[in-house]
Amino acid sequence: MKTRVLITGFEPFDGEAVNPALEAVKQLNGRIIAGAAVITRPLPVVRWKAITALKEAITQVNPDLIIAVGQGLSVTEIQVERIAINVDDFRIQDNEGRQPVDEPIEPDGPAAYWSTLPVKKMVAVMREGGIPASVSNTAGTFVCNHLFYGLMHLLSLEGSRRRGGFIHIPYLPEQAVHKPGQPSMGLDTVLRGLETAVACALSATEDGKFTGGTLC
Amino acid sequence: MKTRVLITGFEPFDGEAVNPALEAVKQLNGRIIAGAAVITRPLPVVRWKAITALKEAITQVNPDLIIAVGQGLSVTEIQVERIAINVDDFRIQDNEGRQPVDEPIEPDGPAAYWSTLPVKKMVAVMREGGIPASVSNTAGTFVCNHLFYGLMHLLSLEGSRRRGGFIHIPYLPEQAVHKPGQPSMGLDTVLRGLETAVACALSATEDGKFTGGTLC
Amino acid sequence: MKTRVLITGFEPFDGEAVNPALEAVKQLNGRIIAGAAVITRPLPVVRWKAITALKEAITQVNPDLIIAVGQGLSVTEIQVERIAINVDDFRIQDNEGRQPVDEPIEPDGPAAYWSTLPVKKMVAVMREGGIPASVSNTAGTFVCNHLFYGLMHLLSLEGSRRRGGFIHIPYLPEQAVHKPGQPSMGLDTVLRGLETAVACALSATEDGKFTGGTLC
Amino acid sequence: MKTRVLITGFEPFDGEAVNPALEAVKQLNGRIIAGAAVITRPLPVVRWKAITALKEAITQVNPDLIIAVGQGLSVTEIQVERIAINVDDFRIQDNEGRQPVDEPIEPDGPAAYWSTLPVKKMVAVMREGGIPASVSNTAGTFVCNHLFYGLMHLLSLEGSRRRGGFIHIPYLPEQAVHKPGQPSMGLDTVLRGLETAVACALSATEDGKFTGGTLC
Repeated sequence: MKTRVLITGFEPFDGEAVNPALEAVKQLNGRIIAGAAVITRPLPVVRWKAITALKEAITQVNPDLIIAVGQGLSVTEIQVERIAINVDDFRIQDNEGRQPVDEPIEPDGPAAYWSTLPVKKMVAVMREGGIPASVSNTAGTFVCNHLFYGLMHLLSLEGSRRRGGFIHIPYLPEQAVHKPGQPSMGLDTVLRGLETAVACALSATEDGKFTGGTLC
Repeated sequence: MKTRVLITGFEPFDGEAVNPALEAVKQLNGRIIAGAAVITRPLPVVRWKAITALKEAITQVNPDLIIAVGQGLSVTEIQVERIAINVDDFRIQDNEGRQPVDEPIEPDGPAAYWSTLPVKKMVAVMREGGIPASVSNTAGTFVCNHLFYGLMHLLSLEGSRRRGGFIHIPYLPEQAVHKPGQPSMGLDTVLRGLETAVACALSATEDGKFTGGTLC
Repeated sequence: MKTRVLITGFEPFDGEAVNPALEAVKQLNGRIIAGAAVITRPLPVVRWKAITALKEAITQVNPDLIIAVGQGLSVTEIQVERIAINVDDFRIQDNEGRQPVDEPIEPDGPAAYWSTLPVKKMVAVMREGGIPASVSNTAGTFVCNHLFYGLMHLLSLEGSRRRGGFIHIPYLPEQAVHKPGQPSMGLDTVLRGLETAVACALSATEDGKFTGGTLC
Repeated sequence: MKTRVLITGFEPFDGEAVNPALEAVKQLNGRIIAGAAVITRPLPVVRWKAITALKEAITQVNPDLIIAVGQGLSVTEIQVERIAINVDDFRIQDNEGRQPVDEPIEPDGPAAYWSTLPVKKMVAVMREGGIPASVSNTAGTFVCNHLFYGLMHLLSLEGSRRRGGFIHIPYLPEQAVHKPGQPSMGLDTVLRGLETAVACALSATEDGKFTGGTLC
């Protein structure tokens, strides 16, 4: 049976009319990447509901690989997240008005989960393809990290038989127009980046040892 | 006789293999924008030689409008420059090893020249088209400002019968790959921006009053 | 007769309760720097009124040297301004609600005036003293640049027999508390910087040739 | 017996002549804060040796509270770290030439440890005192995070009977002089911040619920 990749994108939030993650994900739906079928889903920027909707999508699609995509702020590159942490500390309200402070996502879960994507290789192949990319060591403490932690917790409970992780992408140029000085990335570049990264994640059985750390 | 626009782009410098300005300008050569013929020229990143080559191009092409394009550093938007100042203060060497400090470009010239482009309108129409753009109040003190001042000095001596100015553009994504964290802009977005800006400059006989200042 | 230095500081604006320039200037009032008497004045962040109040202070004090100090935004260093430009383009309203767009400060004045301070030497001596400092090539287009241009226009009309210029300083730490992520500088460091810079301006008859340019 | 606080500061690295953490820590040695005795130690910026030296200091001093302090890069505020992660991914070599990539600090340790300091309260009291401060969600992947993880692993094995964590501080102004554009903070402000934070950590038995998250 054909390999399936589930890619999710968040709906707009924080007063934005669009979310680059959703725009990118729409374009990828139905594509074949490295022989695998891509199925995509929009997700609400709402605590718990984002994880619930993701679980439903995983049940329906039964994917081999899951990549959640979100909008990054003041981000110049496609950022492959390394680690999800077990805390909700929302600087703004989510799309249903929730704003938890320092509450655990899973009270009995570990402090953090590593992405099970080959993050270093994914960054390396994007760069080789001329697409700005980097490893990120924090996915924040808002709904992006919330979903990322929920995903990795689920995959861990399942026995880690399928892999998953999270990617942040910059604003689209048409969004940055309304936020003077914000960096942006064109949708075509984002799409090439995501396709390259997904193909890498499908083929790489283990990650490479490329430097990708930060000093502090 | 058909209106002619001369657009120049600098060659690579500072160890870069490409210059986004040159790449953009190559693509625009021979296009018709708003009924005007676009003629482009590469320029050396060399003190005096840049101005000399620009003067030769102006003599050959006899353009109605001249727009010089250069690569900006740490720039997220297409920046239309407002003013050129009469000083060379090179933080790095130019492509022939010259590094003047606080030397005038034209010893008898004024301290500064305003761009004669409709800078505010150009920024406004690019933003309306979904392209990040802003007014810049300094073109630096390197070869970009050197050329910009030389251009405006020439146009002033001619009696300001033709208009001109300078635009800075961000790195291309494939350049930013080698400068982690640097913002970039795809070539297609840059090209749409430059075409929009040139069309605006051709049609607008005077500038609009849109806020575009900075606090400091 | 003793040499006199007039140092001005702006009042708070843009919703701030303090202005680091005013705090610094208050501390300097009455000091003797390099044998010269320091006299200071607060100035309103109001178009025209800032220049009028400065002229009155110059008439009263009859200083040999005039240094206007203002608050910089997102500034990490003490910035000695190189050039004032003949335009008011206020991104926000001044303290009396005025918000001109692209209006000249002096309709018959030149496009720009150079600072007549030894800007490069002032930056060099501050750095030697362990104080972060740099040359700035734009003082913006708000009341800071407005006052700076007004000052240099006045000194030019007088025959340039006394020197003057403008310095931007960072937020104070207690201000940055309310603007997360904003850089700041302690008042003691700012005061040492200003004293060092004033002493340099008093002693240096001409500027030094130190690299201080920007690429764009 | 008197409460004891162990505060450590790293030695200079990455070509720097000083480390603000070491300078601050030297000043705090022997002070009494909120009735507790402060004992300080310098630590080498060397993989494993930093942890070994910290363990020796803990054995000698038998402190009730341990706070490790390090230099942050491009940091404008005092940053109280929330979480340490179990990976060494050094972007540069440590002071003995080691540069591990994606190696665990403790092969059998958890992915991450939370700071056991009241991070939110510490940030709140520093801000109330006029000192720029924030919570940080990543301590990087260099020796700072290495030491922080090693500390929390040790405290966890001990049964979490004493608390500890990590604080990043900005460059000193005299360092920033050599890194144009880098933000900095005066030593007096850093010292006031650390004293305030230590007093808070000594008195607070649990953390407060203040928003301190980031979006991504």
